[in-house]
Amino acid sequence: MNLKIFIDFAGTPDILELLNEETAGHELIFSKSPATSVLFKAEWDPQLEDVDIYFGQPDHQMIDRFKQLKWIQVSTSSITRYDNQQFRDLVSKRNITVCNSASVYNESCAFHTLGFILAQARQLPSVLNAYTDIGSETWYNLRHSCIPLPDQTVLILGYGAIGKRLAELLGPFHMNVIAYRRKARGDESVPVISENELDRVLAEQADHVVNILPESSETDHFFDANRFAVIKQGAIFYNIGRGTTVDQEALYETLQSGRLKAAWLDVTDPEPLPKDHPLLAQPNCYITPHVAGGHLDEAKTLVRHFLKNFKRFIQNKPLLDRVM
Amino acid sequence: MNLKIFIDFAGTPDILELLNEETAGHELIFSKSPATSVLFKAEWDPQLEDVDIYFGQPDHQMIDRFKQLKWIQVSTSSITRYDNQQFRDLVSKRNITVCNSASVYNESCAFHTLGFILAQARQLPSVLNAYTDIGSETWYNLRHSCIPLPDQTVLILGYGAIGKRLAELLGPFHMNVIAYRRKARGDESVPVISENELDRVLAEQADHVVNILPESSETDHFFDANRFAVIKQGAIFYNIGRGTTVDQEALYETLQSGRLKAAWLDVTDPEPLPKDHPLLAQPNCYITPHVAGGHLDEAKTLVRHFLKNFKRFIQNKPLLDRVM
Repeated sequence: MNLKIFIDFAGTPDILELLNEETAGHELIFSKSPATSVLFKAEWDPQLEDVDIYFGQPDHQMIDRFKQLKWIQVSTSSITRYDNQQFRDLVSKRNITVCNSASVYNESCAFHTLGFILAQARQLPSVLNAYTDIGSETWYNLRHSCIPLPDQTVLILGYGAIGKRLAELLGPFHMNVIAYRRKARGDESVPVISENELDRVLAEQADHVVNILPESSETDHFFDANRFAVIKQGAIFYNIGRGTTVDQEALYETLQSGRLKAAWLDVTDPEPLPKDHPLLAQPNCYITPHVAGGHLDEAKTLVRHFLKNFKRFIQNKPLLDRVM
Repeated sequence: MNLKIFIDFAGTPDILELLNEETAGHELIFSKSPATSVLFKAEWDPQLEDVDIYFGQPDHQMIDRFKQLKWIQVSTSSITRYDNQQFRDLVSKRNITVCNSASVYNESCAFHTLGFILAQARQLPSVLNAYTDIGSETWYNLRHSCIPLPDQTVLILGYGAIGKRLAELLGPFHMNVIAYRRKARGDESVPVISENELDRVLAEQADHVVNILPESSETDHFFDANRFAVIKQGAIFYNIGRGTTVDQEALYETLQSGRLKAAWLDVTDPEPLPKDHPLLAQPNCYITPHVAGGHLDEAKTLVRHFLKNFKRFIQNKPLLDRVM
């Protein structure tokens, strides 16, 4: 079986070599204008008509024009633009398998979140390069501003691969880890709460609120003024999911009032925030520019993930990170 | 048995109340000038002559003047000024038990070190509050500057309570953890190397060199120019032990040359460094001002640790953190 594989992906020479080697005997077609982000809108390329596999960010409105397509390997973790009933019905009818690349970014995202939690606990933004005499009042204040994590509670909202890995990393911390997901599957490694218990846990237990909710119509402004109003005094809020799940004005108010002690955000809406956005000037709001999934040799990890799936595809094995 | 307990320790009212309650039936004597640091030199107080227990930082040169002393609970983790043969012989002859308060600070120190490791891996000093367009060259560079920790090697020098806890916290990271200690006990939870293997491991394996060596004549400038010269290109150096174990000029040269990618120091020699010290201006050197053991309610943890030992003392049980 000679397969046509469309690569909508800008790679360095060593990555292209890796792709060529591992797909020997099949035909690789490289996009003339490779996708650089999830917002990228590719133009129709006549070669697409008879490709079997698409690795990248195909235009969801053009799927009908692909005649041979069997498998889409989306090159991101997010599948927001494909995540609607019309698209699901279409790929189901056409028997097209859709996978994302969640595994490529999950590990880094979990570590990034843990980095946030520890930077907050150890007060790194204040103590890093603080110059003070040992035994001075400033020194004692810095020391005592650090919060012991053991016995504190972490609530993880959205318990997918990142949440699971984060819970695993937190294992030896002696913290209470609780997950929120709409439907518990029963195989979770930590206690799971559902929507009707959420406000109680936010109000009474969660010292660290880790938001990894995906973007959807149901999660839009999931954290709004009402939800922030019940949150426990002094809690810390983290967002590693999507900016749209948070009402940023309400977040700003909650940080201003001191109800939230601090917020650590890797995602905002939009990205980046407008330069005059109040969150950018809010001292207890720490923002990283959507880099949680980033890591050295990211492109290579992404290609390796595709190649792992390609091998499974040829062997007719179930694909990894299948979402449709 | 009515015991006289000397408290050389400045406490808030709730802490004094806790002490009073838990030692009811015994006599508490509070120092008129409580110790505020390990460098503090107390004056002789005539009441000391017949105290049974000393909680704080007794002057090691005055021990002979205590007539009844049975137990010294040192209020720090460091026992540098007591750690000499003369003092050891004296307390041994006089049957005085000496404990430090390592347990109080170990946990925080392990978390602080982990905070350093994650801040480095996730490049927090660069990505925090970096303002950049998604998809820009700066953005890709930031993303790719983050280093995946799994499969990297951590070498922990000085495998006491902090090292052990750090190894435990690193458990789910999928890293290789190796400990260096002069004599392996055989009960360590990670592979232990000794001095003759140290340079090889530093040269070939250790991506993260975590120095928790205590201060002693043998560890003075343990990391000197020769040792830094063998260290693996691009390694990261952490110091949570004592500043004197590092030749800071050699460290500076190694950071300048780029052989060390970065250094994270909670301790220096002296503390703080003189304002014009080159390490303070070195961009890949991150310094926190000896706060690794610090945490909220530190004084209470310290008193609770003393009280736990006091209960054991009365019950004639072996004391915790006994060092002599």
